Parts: sequence; structure tokens; C-alpha cells
Amino acid sequence: MSVIEIPDGSPFGVGNLPYGIFSVAGARPRVGTRLGDTVIDLSVVLGDTGEDAAFAASSLNAFMAQGPARWAEVREQVTALVGGDVPADALHPVRDVQLHLPVEIADYVDFYASEHHASNLGRLFRPDAEPLLPNWKHLPVAYHGRAGTVVVSGTDVVRPCGQRKAPDEQSPSYGPSRRLDIEAELGFVVGVGSALGDRIGVDEFAEHVFGAVLVNDWSARDIQAWEYVPLGPNLGKSFATSISPWVVPLAALQAARVPLPGQDPQPLEYLRGRRDWGLDIEFVVEWNGEEVSRPPYKDMYWSPAQMLAHMTVNGASARTGDLFASGTISGPGKHQRGAFIELTWGGREPVTVKGEERTFLLDGDRVTLSATAPGPDGTRIGFGEVTGTIRPAR
Amino acid sequence: MSVIEIPDGSPFGVGNLPYGIFSVAGARPRVGTRLGDTVIDLSVVLGDTGEDAAFAASSLNAFMAQGPARWAEVREQVTALVGGDVPADALHPVRDVQLHLPVEIADYVDFYASEHHASNLGRLFRPDAEPLLPNWKHLPVAYHGRAGTVVVSGTDVVRPCGQRKAPDEQSPSYGPSRRLDIEAELGFVVGVGSALGDRIGVDEFAEHVFGAVLVNDWSARDIQAWEYVPLGPNLGKSFATSISPWVVPLAALQAARVPLPGQDPQPLEYLRGRRDWGLDIEFVVEWNGEEVSRPPYKDMYWSPAQMLAHMTVNGASARTGDLFASGTISGPGKHQRGAFIELTWGGREPVTVKGEERTFLLDGDRVTLSATAPGPDGTRIGFGEVTGTIRPAR
Repeated sequence: MSVIEIPDGSPFGVGNLPYGIFSVAGARPRVGTRLGDTVIDLSVVLGDTGEDAAFAASSLNAFMAQGPARWAEVREQVTALVGGDVPADALHPVRDVQLHLPVEIADYVDFYASEHHASNLGRLFRPDAEPLLPNWKHLPVAYHGRAGTVVVSGTDVVRPCGQRKAPDEQSPSYGPSRRLDIEAELGFVVGVGSALGDRIGVDEFAEHVFGAVLVNDWSARDIQAWEYVPLGPNLGKSFATSISPWVVPLAALQAARVPLPGQDPQPLEYLRGRRDWGLDIEFVVEWNGEEVSRPPYKDMYWSPAQMLAHMTVNGASARTGDLFASGTISGPGKHQRGAFIELTWGGREPVTVKGEERTFLLDGDRVTLSATAPGPDGTRIGFGEVTGTIRPAR
Repeated sequence: MSVIEIPDGSPFGVGNLPYGIFSVAGARPRVGTRLGDTVIDLSVVLGDTGEDAAFAASSLNAFMAQGPARWAEVREQVTALVGGDVPADALHPVRDVQLHLPVEIADYVDFYASEHHASNLGRLFRPDAEPLLPNWKHLPVAYHGRAGTVVVSGTDVVRPCGQRKAPDEQSPSYGPSRRLDIEAELGFVVGVGSALGDRIGVDEFAEHVFGAVLVNDWSARDIQAWEYVPLGPNLGKSFATSISPWVVPLAALQAARVPLPGQDPQPLEYLRGRRDWGLDIEFVVEWNGEEVSRPPYKDMYWSPAQMLAHMTVNGASARTGDLFASGTISGPGKHQRGAFIELTWGGREPVTVKGEERTFLLDGDRVTLSATAPGPDGTRIGFGEVTGTIRPAR
């Protein structure tokens, strides 16, 4: 039996206890949590090793489907366990494990919930028109992304090829994207779904949503700009979406709840919660190890609960494993923009990265998003990171 | 042992042999084929009843993943079998079985491949602009739909609620869709996927695609019109997409292959196949039992192989169970339009259904799509039907 040491100020303290899927050499993936720099095998400590066991599983889906009462019970058990001695065979240094995609993704929906981001992109993509389209303040605009290309942090991103056409070109050409970009987002994972024809009310968020992850929704701006009318982004986004390996449970985000910045006009009733909230999560965007931006999640216009309510208001069912992401997080300041197209204003205002002027991503570039939030008792909890390196087009 | 009788002119002759998932009372779903009005239990006749068996399965995914050599082998075996005596316990009258969703859908992508449809919708949605947007003849435009709401024929469709705003209204209102519509489409099911970063060439279609189904992509035009800028359709489509229970294998569609109607300008090289083809499939749209339209698939501008090549040209992986659909099939004639918004020109030119003037769908309406195609030796093969009834909003 061992006592787990937690380094001072670790963002993985007892108030966090995120869930992930890990493996060690020669063993099958299973569910773990992280405390300090230690991964705890939950299939060992919770004694759940039968064939259908939710913790001896290669995704969190079975556990997530068990619902909020079970989530609370397990969190209580794990909290109690890590306060004492833990069987040594359940413990692995985080550097010794491989982390896997934590969730088998069902549908992936990507929102557009930052007013600053939507306004910036409106100015860049449609310079002669109002930056926000007429629907934007009435509903949380979103589209479906490609679930099959959601990958775990650390997965390389092959530069996508496709059709690009600059405004001054007569016809499109084919080739590797020249405007490869990131989008720093927060993603929410559905644990308990809903039936076809039903809807999830704006106050029922916590009965359905299991937790949150960091999302980097890689974007090829040149491919996107040419393809996106009238049916929205497709190949400019579908080549890869990276998520962090640790799913931070909603319960760990209690202290991060903040009021929304304010909505005007007041949204329709199905989007009005009794006590709706945003989240005070601070993102850091690093480009080849250098911080280039700090997007603030607390400035997001639409709340997570509004996103889920809107997504199902038409009776669309939700499923265990559905992932919905916030869209790019951008604050009002230049240093708060969560995409390089905004940060460099369409490539016209380069930023300095490791002493070089940079606009979009080059082969070999590495982007890492991380985030922290207020935790219990004045601590801070962390989401860890989502990282990826650009490989040359094939 | 029994010999299966095939009614004269049956669209389910020996040249068809589609695959589906069926169950009889008290038994688990399994893979079957249909000959005449008889469903043949393939888990019985192919002796494949082990636990991991591809035919004693509740979806076609395991069989589809086995690839084209195995598909050909099984088709040959089944063709030989049904020419002789078949064990009686493998046979069920089609009226006695329940048909299930045949495929566990991975990602669902919906194209926009009919020039007539895209032009009609352009005129209706953007009356002051060119009907086709500049990218339309350069790439097969598409978006991702909601995989979790793909349902099997016969599933009721609950009228969706959402935000609608007519052009003359100041702000949106919430309520049941008043412009509920259909889209008659053909869908293709991926059997063998591709790795992340790879692409599927336009001549590699048959190595990946297992077969085809009928698709009714139900659409709430009022919700769609308000929400769809700039990220494309979302709630106007995500509430339900119905597919036919029988997947017609590519091998059965050999005689239906026809040249494409012609593409001008010539598309970029990755979209140019050595011998690309369209399909001569005739759809029939019935509204409450009355034929209102006969959309011709052979007029589609983009080929199925071009759709798949485009979908993966950016390195997006494909997975077993991916469904990609053609988008609404509309021909040049009014009676060839595959959506009611086109057939009734935005609701301004009602059609007569059972003696009543009709525009969009009312509660209780039933829409049935069916389709046939040339089969071997001058026969015709059928896709069966995809049907659904509108239930009142909840």
C-alpha cells in the first residue's frame, strides 16, 4: 500500500480527479484517474474487473452511461480512497502510461459561442457585411463535425490537401493547405443521452453531461473559405480534431461557475435557465513552446446548458459519447484570441514565435493548449493539455 | 428443405440479394437477405453462429468490414444456395419479420450532388443571387449530418420544434416547424474504411463501398432557413433521417451503371476517374399513397466515387458504417423533384394529394420512397422502400 504524493500546487489535486483511459506496456487499456503525477487504475481500486466492467474498459462510455448518481458515488469513493493508502499495483507514474482517446465519440457538434470570435471571423470572411449574422444572438449556431477524426492529444496532424481558391484567382487549385490553423475550444461529453423526439431542457444539463475536455479543432482556412457556402465547413475541419486525454467531471468545475457575461436580446424561453452559468476557465495557447494567447472561457456568450438545450430542442436524440464543443474561445483582447487567423488578422499581422514572424502553421510546428480553473478551497484544477504536431502533406 | 418461390417480376430476384437485419418474435436480430417475399436467415444457411459471427449480428458492420473479396464470396455462396433447396428453418415470410436499422452508422455525410436541386434551392433561398454558388461545379459540396438520428424505415417522425423567422418578421419565434419537408436521396454505406491521413482515390470506390440504401433526409425548411448561415444546416435536418432496411450490394447495381451526364468545367484531377459512372435508379415519391414525383438518379451531376474521393482527400479517415448520401435527387422536370419545397416552389404552387391542395407535411402524413434499377438479364431490381409518418410535435 502506498500514499500518493501530490506536488505542491499540482492542478491534479484531490479536487480534480479527472477520468481517462490509460495503458501500461503489455496490458489492455482501462479507466484511470490522475492525482498529482500518478495514474490510479480504477479497475483495481474499485474492484471492477468483470467482463462487462465499466472500469476495465477501453472507453469511459459504459461508466458515463450509468448516470449522475453513480458518477457522484464513484467520485466519493475515489476521494475517500486517495486520502489513505492505495494498493501499489493500482499506481503508475503518469510518464509511464499511454493515454488513449477517453471516449468513443458518438456525434460531434461544434458551436460558435464566442461573440468575439464570431465577430472577428465575420470581419475576416465577409469584410463588406455586418460581422454577426442576424441569427447569432438568437441561437447558439453550430454544425456537425466528423466524429471519426476526433483524436487524442499527441496524435500527429497530417497537413490536409484540398481545393483552395484565393479571391483573386480564376479557378481553384489542389494542394496542401497554406493556411493551417487551430481553434482553442472547450468540449462537453454527454454521459446520459435522450430519446428521439424528446429534448433536454436548459436546466437538465447536469443530468446528462459527464464532464469537459480541451479541444483543438484544427482548421484549414483556405479550404474552408472556398467550400463553406452554403452548407458550412466540411473538409476544412474534418481531417482532425484533438482532445485532451482527461475528462474533468462537472463536479470538479463547481467552483469555476460564473455568471454569463449577459445576453441581449433575451433569448427565447427554451434557452433561459433558472440559474445558468458560464465557466471561469483560463486557456493558454503555446506555439512551439511559446505562449501566444490566453483565451478566457468566462467571456463566452452562450452557456454550455444553452448549447445542449438547443442541440436537442428539435427532438434530436443525444447519445452517450456525444461531444459538443464551444467553438473557438476568444476574448476582447488581441492576446485572448483562440485561433491564429484572428491572432494574425487573416495572416496580415504576423506574431513573433521563437524570434520568427509567423502567421499560419508550418510543418513540424507543435501547438499545445492547456487550461486551469478555480477548484475547491482556493486551489486551481487543470485540464492538462491537448497537443499536436503538424506533419507534411502526403 | 424448401424451394423459394419468387413472384413474377419481383424486384427481389436472384440478381438483387440485398442484406438487412431482421428478427422474428423471441429471437435476436441477425443478418438476412430477401428473395421474393422470403427473408433468408444467413446465420443459418452460412452456418455462421459463433459468438463473433458476422451473420448472427445485430448490424451488418462486421460483415461489411471483411472487405470486397469476402462480399463476392458470400454473394456467390448465397446465389448458389437459393438456386436449390434451402433449410426451412432459415426461411421467414417477409411479413412476419421485423426489419432493423441495417448498419451501425459511424459518420453521416450528406452531399448536394444534383444540379437541378441545388439550382432550385438557390433560387428559393437566395432569390437575388446566382442560383449555383461559385464552388458548386468544382467540388461536391457536403456537410456532416447527425449519425445518431439515422433511423430505419417505418420509424415515426415527430414534428420538430425550433426557431423560425419569416423574412417579414422582426424576431424569431419558437414552435413546431410549419414547413416540414422530405429529401429523396440515395445513400452509400462504407464497408472498408481508410486510415487517418490517407485518402480514397476516385477509382478505389468498389474496394470500400459495400452497397446503397434509400434515404429520406427529413427537413424543416423554416428552421433551416433561419439557422443555416454561416455554418450550414443543423437542427433543420438533425431530428431524423430515415433509411431503407435493405442494403443493395454494389454487385447488384452493375447493370444500372450509366455515364455521368457531363461535367463542365472539368473537375480537378483527384475527382477524375478512369471510368467513372452514375446509376440509372428511378425513384418514386408517394405522399399518403399517391405518387407525386419520380426523381431520376441518372441525372446527378457528381458521381458516388467523386463524393467518396472528395470526402477523404484531406486525409479524413473513413470507417466501417460511414453513410454518405447524395443529397436530394431532382431531375429537370417538375414531376422529377425530390423535395416538396421544390415541387411546390417554396409552398407557392401546391400539389394535389388525394384531392387536396398540399404544400408541406401535415401531422399524420406518410411519405414513402421506393426505387428500382436495371438488374441482370433485363430484369429490374428494387431497393424496397423507406417510409415514415409524421407525428404531432411534443
